[in-house]
Amino acid sequence: MAAPSRLLVDGAADAALSPLDRGLAYGDGLFETIRFVAGRAALWPRHMQRLRESCARLCLPAPDEALLAREAAAVADGMADAVVRITITRGVGERGYAMPASPQPTRIVAAFAAPVTAPETYRDGLRLRLCQLRLAEQPLLAGIKHLNRLEQVLARAEWDDPSIADGLLLDGAGRVICTTMANLFAVIGGALVTPSLERCGVAGVARAEVLAVREVRVRELALGELPHAQELFLSSSVRGIVPVRSMAETVYVPGPVTRALQSHWRELGFPTEHS
Amino acid sequence: MAAPSRLLVDGAADAALSPLDRGLAYGDGLFETIRFVAGRAALWPRHMQRLRESCARLCLPAPDEALLAREAAAVADGMADAVVRITITRGVGERGYAMPASPQPTRIVAAFAAPVTAPETYRDGLRLRLCQLRLAEQPLLAGIKHLNRLEQVLARAEWDDPSIADGLLLDGAGRVICTTMANLFAVIGGALVTPSLERCGVAGVARAEVLAVREVRVRELALGELPHAQELFLSSSVRGIVPVRSMAETVYVPGPVTRALQSHWRELGFPTEHS
Repeated sequence: MAAPSRLLVDGAADAALSPLDRGLAYGDGLFETIRFVAGRAALWPRHMQRLRESCARLCLPAPDEALLAREAAAVADGMADAVVRITITRGVGERGYAMPASPQPTRIVAAFAAPVTAPETYRDGLRLRLCQLRLAEQPLLAGIKHLNRLEQVLARAEWDDPSIADGLLLDGAGRVICTTMANLFAVIGGALVTPSLERCGVAGVARAEVLAVREVRVRELALGELPHAQELFLSSSVRGIVPVRSMAETVYVPGPVTRALQSHWRELGFPTEHS
Repeated sequence: MAAPSRLLVDGAADAALSPLDRGLAYGDGLFETIRFVAGRAALWPRHMQRLRESCARLCLPAPDEALLAREAAAVADGMADAVVRITITRGVGERGYAMPASPQPTRIVAAFAAPVTAPETYRDGLRLRLCQLRLAEQPLLAGIKHLNRLEQVLARAEWDDPSIADGLLLDGAGRVICTTMANLFAVIGGALVTPSLERCGVAGVARAEVLAVREVRVRELALGELPHAQELFLSSSVRGIVPVRSMAETVYVPGPVTRALQSHWRELGFPTEHS
């Protein structure tokens, strides 16, 4: 029996993409990365909500969510633990920035093996570094998981020490925004805080889940506040809740807020055991 | 006899692209749009220079320029007036922002019919509008013609009046930077001025040609200076030198600097006759 195809382009197995697709030409589109554990994606409704809202902001037609659900299930079929990436672009277009009058979006659904995160990482946390790159401020694109990700590529290229898991990103004014691949939360003075993302950054689906189940203060967060945090952790749709063990010179120990959210993620079905 | 292929992917005629290409996933790459008149691209060396410098800034291997020249000539073969788009991406990669240790860049070379610009436009100029979108400031990407062009897509979608040819873009501080598809020059107090592009904007190849043949002051340019300009014109590798006839409420008449540069472009072989 043939293995199931792990890649669908507009529903066709292992199809290729037109080199004239606007997703390539201009990064004109967006994506979702969705963890599937034993065929189930606990945060699927939140992914679809962000996709709908982001499509509206980019003037893209809303995709057929039932179709996406069938295709995501098909590419992840038989995988114990998968990450499904859904990419929606504005489709093939003529040369030039003007949006086609009747866009025919391209839909790519692909499954990858979920990255392995060591139990020790969930238990003790990961090491963060501060990136030199400062995120540019573009309110019209802030929050959207769009295809213009050169800043993340350049930021991730700043280090190659494998013991450093991620890099902290600030905006031009020195405010904490997120990491290259996750959102950041801090417990400061007993309150759970996460940066507002009105000017830059990606508004993650895991972040939305935390906001839904905990009281969180969404506000500007200065880098100088982090050494005073009692807890520091990352949220990611792929990895769930991961404590930060150290950021620059400051060492953190996972506390009760981090542990409670990790428990919530386990209840959602994510394998984030930490011992 | 078969028509020549107008599209090459890594040298293969009419080939498709992997949906896992980082050019699509992250906009991880760059491009050049090069005017070919009767098979000749007068600004080819400047395009190659920008491509080399941009590849270095994005940590991409430098492409084989002789190969690009052969492929560009092949796709434009038999076309009286073409625009050749060369796209270089970081190639196929695993999921994740980290650059592959040994990237295999993807090379796409495609020919399109050159857009028709009316003789009246070269003679009298075009209408500009002011875009509401403000360009984000990212010095690490400024000047590069990279594949992250959602800002230009959104800016171009601000109007659909076909009598308006282009939109002026400011940065967050209100400084004039460029238009959605060209660089801008102004004659102010007798001096030729163009905005500095240290924080955002694309450093066009036609702009580089103007800088090479005229004395130009490259400096910050405030929007409030434009109504006092004696001449205003755009430079573009595709369209050459095009006067601005009106920007918002201000009307301009093409002057001697604009005409001299149009003459220079005609000497380079561009069909920019204005009568």
